[in-house]
Amino acid sequence: MKAIQFSRFGKPTEVAECVDVEEPAPPGAGEVLISVEASPINPSDLLTLSGEYGRLPQLPATPGNEGVGRVLSVGSGVTHLKQGDRVLLPLGARTWRERLTADATRTVKLPETGDPLQLSMIAVNPPTALLMLKLAPLKPGDWVIQNAANSAVGQYLITFARQQGLKTINLVRREMLVAPLKAMGADVVLVDGEDLQKRVRVATGGGQVGLGIDAVGGAATQRLASAVSPGGTVVNYGMLSGEVCHMAPADLIFRGITLTGFWLTTWFTRTPADEVRRTMQTVVDQVAGGALHAKVEATYPLTQITDAVRHAGQPGREGKVLLVPTER
Amino acid sequence: MKAIQFSRFGKPTEVAECVDVEEPAPPGAGEVLISVEASPINPSDLLTLSGEYGRLPQLPATPGNEGVGRVLSVGSGVTHLKQGDRVLLPLGARTWRERLTADATRTVKLPETGDPLQLSMIAVNPPTALLMLKLAPLKPGDWVIQNAANSAVGQYLITFARQQGLKTINLVRREMLVAPLKAMGADVVLVDGEDLQKRVRVATGGGQVGLGIDAVGGAATQRLASAVSPGGTVVNYGMLSGEVCHMAPADLIFRGITLTGFWLTTWFTRTPADEVRRTMQTVVDQVAGGALHAKVEATYPLTQITDAVRHAGQPGREGKVLLVPTER
Repeated sequence: MKAIQFSRFGKPTEVAECVDVEEPAPPGAGEVLISVEASPINPSDLLTLSGEYGRLPQLPATPGNEGVGRVLSVGSGVTHLKQGDRVLLPLGARTWRERLTADATRTVKLPETGDPLQLSMIAVNPPTALLMLKLAPLKPGDWVIQNAANSAVGQYLITFARQQGLKTINLVRREMLVAPLKAMGADVVLVDGEDLQKRVRVATGGGQVGLGIDAVGGAATQRLASAVSPGGTVVNYGMLSGEVCHMAPADLIFRGITLTGFWLTTWFTRTPADEVRRTMQTVVDQVAGGALHAKVEATYPLTQITDAVRHAGQPGREGKVLLVPTER
Repeated sequence: MKAIQFSRFGKPTEVAECVDVEEPAPPGAGEVLISVEASPINPSDLLTLSGEYGRLPQLPATPGNEGVGRVLSVGSGVTHLKQGDRVLLPLGARTWRERLTADATRTVKLPETGDPLQLSMIAVNPPTALLMLKLAPLKPGDWVIQNAANSAVGQYLITFARQQGLKTINLVRREMLVAPLKAMGADVVLVDGEDLQKRVRVATGGGQVGLGIDAVGGAATQRLASAVSPGGTVVNYGMLSGEVCHMAPADLIFRGITLTGFWLTTWFTRTPADEVRRTMQTVVDQVAGGALHAKVEATYPLTQITDAVRHAGQPGREGKVLLVPTER
């Protein structure tokens, strides 16, 4: 069968290869054999390929943290899954391959309703968006400001914020993204750049902006911080600019702004299993029901991995790039 | 009498002038007339002159936030002070002048023991050092790392940390400062720069570095953050480099480092009067008793204000610069 592998860290287009590998062993006791239907290429995957991520595999390795599949067969003692079920792959299952064997207790059955591409993006970006909204004390009517608002996390965050009675200021790089985000429920959409503090004050009528969400770094972090209200929090969760975050001492000292980070891996490690399950169920229900949605820009078979990771790393793309290891 | 005044914001050497002004009115009910003995030039004073501070006066104004003086006379109803008492001037009393009238209830009587120059620096830097040590959960044996370790705040912080059973890593810009800081009680003194993370790990034997204290900004913030243990806090309270703070997303996201700010003004505003009084009394007792001390590099009369603020703004000075409005 085919699988993506990399044997050194480097430019994703240069190190990720589609290779022929052995079929996984038949599922043993408590295991399940799954055919992978779809797996997204997340920024964290590109950082893993380039060796910049916070946790790196031993090489050679197959990338891919999440996805959906169909159960092909189950091992002995597995009762909650059967052949043909659609399932969420266990997080970190090295999903960029045609088939894999997984621990059945870590494999969640999904409803038949819902778009499998949307379902394949459940485990990483939606909980990131949902959990970051908890990193500052916010009350209904308060504002949240985010950059990279057109990213998958950005789109999920708009939906979750709205459900919680929060309003969003969404920063984008191009004017043409304003209308689509407003159609998705964004309250305010601004092109990121000069005078942001003033433009935000005008757009919100001087409202309380308690939280800033930064996926970019560099001067973008500082602009975001300048637009957050005194005492507020800026959360960095991405490094799209490749630059270190800038924070003006005046914002830190005189305006009491705090800069912190969010890593879903830390949350998974530190959170009781019950709470993890509840959070993930919330997300599954909303994606399956269609309430939660992120744009998809393209899908690629494994054989076109170079094009796929190039596309996923392009600035200015307007939706997620996914791998579809087996035809649906 | 003489007083320092500035009527526009700009370079401190260009805007601060020594002028002749009217004597203050005799003290009314509840007031006290004080002859100013000494008042330090703090970084916050220079930022006030340049218009960069977090709270700016209406111009023209007299600078100076703290100092000591002698009571010349008291108004009716003042019982806790008498002529000749040495007093701590009320915070923000615009102290760079020969004499001033103050609210007696905000004027604290000082012991006759203790160096008046040391006593004049009580109200701003020592509580800043003491309170910043509370901004991360630390237990005895843990490490604190600070840059600008030879500043007054840095020197006070070494003493307070030692009293609390904490160990300090002190970053300086020149090798020649290592020995004097060690003599003051610094556990580790390193020249700030490349490979800081590694050098700190070696110096502490891999100990827990829970808190970083940053007075510099720019890449110095990032170096400090790299040397703080996962989950730790970096507190910025100064902008000596004039640059924005840099923070690597990898430190924020993967290592869970938080960057926050400290402003003594905010603390004074939000803290119950009793707690403020207790904190200040701790500091007064320790300075009067000689346990707490910061180096003094020079004193200037008001008439030499241009030289004084130039000297105070010089990088690489090795002690505080103070004004001595009246001869002792």
